[in-house]
Amino acid sequence: MANDKKFVEQITPMDEDFARWYTDIVKKADLIDYSSVKGCMIIRPYGYAIWENIQRLLDARFKATGHENVYMPMFIPESLLQKEKDHVEGFAPECAWVTIGGSEPLTEKLCVRPTSETLFCEHYANIIKSYRDLPKLYNQWCSVVRWEKTTRPFLRTREFLWQEGHTMHATREDAIEETRRMLEVYADFYEHELAIPVIRGQKTDKEKFAGAEATYTVEALMHDGKALQGGTSHYFGDGFARAFGIQYLDRDNQLKYCHQTSWGVSTRMIGGIIMTHGDDSGLVLPPAVAPIQVVIIPVQQHKEGVLDAAYALRDRLAKICRVKVDDSENTPGWKFSEYEMKGVPLRIEIGPRDIAEGHCVVVRRDNREKTFVPLDALETSIPALLDTVTAALYAKALENRENRTFEAHTLDEMIEIAKTKSGYIKAMWCGELACEEKLKEVADVSSRCMPFGAEPIGDKCVCCGKPATKLVYWGKAY
Amino acid sequence: MANDKKFVEQITPMDEDFARWYTDIVKKADLIDYSSVKGCMIIRPYGYAIWENIQRLLDARFKATGHENVYMPMFIPESLLQKEKDHVEGFAPECAWVTIGGSEPLTEKLCVRPTSETLFCEHYANIIKSYRDLPKLYNQWCSVVRWEKTTRPFLRTREFLWQEGHTMHATREDAIEETRRMLEVYADFYEHELAIPVIRGQKTDKEKFAGAEATYTVEALMHDGKALQGGTSHYFGDGFARAFGIQYLDRDNQLKYCHQTSWGVSTRMIGGIIMTHGDDSGLVLPPAVAPIQVVIIPVQQHKEGVLDAAYALRDRLAKICRVKVDDSENTPGWKFSEYEMKGVPLRIEIGPRDIAEGHCVVVRRDNREKTFVPLDALETSIPALLDTVTAALYAKALENRENRTFEAHTLDEMIEIAKTKSGYIKAMWCGELACEEKLKEVADVSSRCMPFGAEPIGDKCVCCGKPATKLVYWGKAY
Repeated sequence: MANDKKFVEQITPMDEDFARWYTDIVKKADLIDYSSVKGCMIIRPYGYAIWENIQRLLDARFKATGHENVYMPMFIPESLLQKEKDHVEGFAPECAWVTIGGSEPLTEKLCVRPTSETLFCEHYANIIKSYRDLPKLYNQWCSVVRWEKTTRPFLRTREFLWQEGHTMHATREDAIEETRRMLEVYADFYEHELAIPVIRGQKTDKEKFAGAEATYTVEALMHDGKALQGGTSHYFGDGFARAFGIQYLDRDNQLKYCHQTSWGVSTRMIGGIIMTHGDDSGLVLPPAVAPIQVVIIPVQQHKEGVLDAAYALRDRLAKICRVKVDDSENTPGWKFSEYEMKGVPLRIEIGPRDIAEGHCVVVRRDNREKTFVPLDALETSIPALLDTVTAALYAKALENRENRTFEAHTLDEMIEIAKTKSGYIKAMWCGELACEEKLKEVADVSSRCMPFGAEPIGDKCVCCGKPATKLVYWGKAY
Repeated sequence: MANDKKFVEQITPMDEDFARWYTDIVKKADLIDYSSVKGCMIIRPYGYAIWENIQRLLDARFKATGHENVYMPMFIPESLLQKEKDHVEGFAPECAWVTIGGSEPLTEKLCVRPTSETLFCEHYANIIKSYRDLPKLYNQWCSVVRWEKTTRPFLRTREFLWQEGHTMHATREDAIEETRRMLEVYADFYEHELAIPVIRGQKTDKEKFAGAEATYTVEALMHDGKALQGGTSHYFGDGFARAFGIQYLDRDNQLKYCHQTSWGVSTRMIGGIIMTHGDDSGLVLPPAVAPIQVVIIPVQQHKEGVLDAAYALRDRLAKICRVKVDDSENTPGWKFSEYEMKGVPLRIEIGPRDIAEGHCVVVRRDNREKTFVPLDALETSIPALLDTVTAALYAKALENRENRTFEAHTLDEMIEIAKTKSGYIKAMWCGELACEEKLKEVADVSSRCMPFGAEPIGDKCVCCGKPATKLVYWGKAY
């Protein structure tokens, strides 16, 4: 039978046009498709399987830290959204509004949730009475909607999938500890599972979440030197608690307001994986979230014993990893390209000669390194190789970040670096919004974060020259 | 410290008012809460954990039968919804419409998905080219919205959680086989995991899904004798394929239309569990989906060694089931009532005397039967008891259904049974819509299903007396 898949289409080289390289990958690796719903995406099986792996691994971490999942309505009545002033100002402009239900105009319009603080607060006001009810540690997996003008798959879409943790605590200290704990859960997940190094820090007031007292963030640097906000964790103080009347009777018989946090990560993570690890042959997936960790490609599969040997390997490996045999009629060369495009971490080639010699060829996706592995050593070699791949991906991403981290001590230096390089620019800042805005205007950079425990690199604001104690990472961001 | 939880509030007895009994349980077992979003519900941690168990077990069955998960946009443009005529007529009247996005009126209004056939079809038209691309077996876990006028938690809410499978096949036979395969997956899940007997059958044309050629259903009977549609599976023929242009090039080089199915179950299942197994002490959960399968209650827990013994039991049982120790300061009596309300299948009581005698007391939730179990036999006794509970729940539900299944041979009989009894009424039907409508009018019953392979109980239509070959189960339904 004729093979109608003779070659894998090329993608735009990343150095030629990074944005086109990115959209080529999301389409050609079968991660997404477009539809007639503008600004939204279809997440195809291969893309959704990555998200399922992310969900499973994160959800286990959330449960291990005492959190429970719930499901809130997807609609927020306008009056509920308006209860906290800063919050509604931040979100109302990008809401999608339901105005008709069951053929009739609604008496109050309903916003499709952009985030669920208000719903959680209304519920918490109902169920929290005593200090014994605290802390309440809830999480929700769902989709949210923000009416963005320009969109890009995974990075910015009108609807996206995420999780949102919402917690209530007796004291400020408890809430801040939670905020930092969940930020560390994110950081650990990025570094150990996704092989993406992140900087942990605090957002400036300008960049913080609408309604929060403090926003903490993990920031990643993409291959092209642009920053990606990887996940955020917010401390709200008792602002929402006062607006929604969330009080508890303390041990001392006094009614007190609760202290609140929220924290979230989204399908953006998948965009971060693509832009951190991908190359000109396609996607490169970290083993922990790869839908297929090992693909077995039979060579000369029509010869006797080859397919059987491939299936036997698969059955053994299925006990320790996610493995697939491609026994289709496409050529081995076509299959090599296809699974490179899909970023499968390891490829096993096995043909008549390999079988005769009692080994197989294992090829790493990240650096194309080939190893001959004795067939009886696969159960130890494959997990070790998967770990090696994760470590190598992390090291390469860290090296990219280090090579793309610069320092600026004067405004001229800042402007010059922003114009000629792409990456983080470390610089001191006085704390004034005016300087932050000016840097945006003259150097087109925004503050990414103020890293925890960072050493100052000077004592004067890079912008105004006044005394400064805060070290900020500046950059261009997705 | 004073114990402020001295007693568990009572619920309305089910024989007094079944509807109030139901709403008492969903609130008092902490399954749901209401919010200011009318017609929607908050699914609380205990309720959501049941859904997570349902999802995990069903998802494994879907994947084992070759299905892949995807995620489609939650919005459907009006023009897309209108592409299949019967479908839009069925759903448009109960749609919620987004008309404003990002502060501006939309040029085309967007429906919040009530079901996603149209989105899947648009995508399938993009990606299906050849017979090699078939079958496509996709599933989606998400929430959907239908603007219901009267709502009841889990049974009928404006938003609910579900899964929707959507598949495309080369032939009519392949599609019908899939439809029946997935119906059997549902039936098997209901009977083996939820301990709910179901009748497998086909819906009449009046009751079938908007746009389907045939709808298959699993029907369960609740404790009060009202029916619940447990899950449906639809065969669409090539109707949508023609409307959306979904064609494939077959082996014979001809372009052909695909044959389609869809199938779904929802959080209604939780309502079915409550109304099948619950009693006047509260919820009774089938072990497979119970968030806590075994609760350990220390007796005289202040005495030395009691709590340690309880924790030791928990650590052993945690390897084989979902187990919790309640070491709070509430009284054992309060705890007994609390976990009865929450439907935990087994309770273990352990106090100083039990420890001295080397056993514990195990109490079944379903019939309150007490067993003394030697402490060293728990690893075998507990799984066996959980299986016994599942079997007993199933037998009891089946007995209820058998006691509540009646036969009618004349219209008068039908009216009399419908007036005086509550349950299924088996009766022959000629196949005419007019008779179906008349039975609704005069006996207030609807056709639940035409069971597969059912023996006729006569040869004349119960309504018009004309020749009839179809046996129908009639009843009142949720």
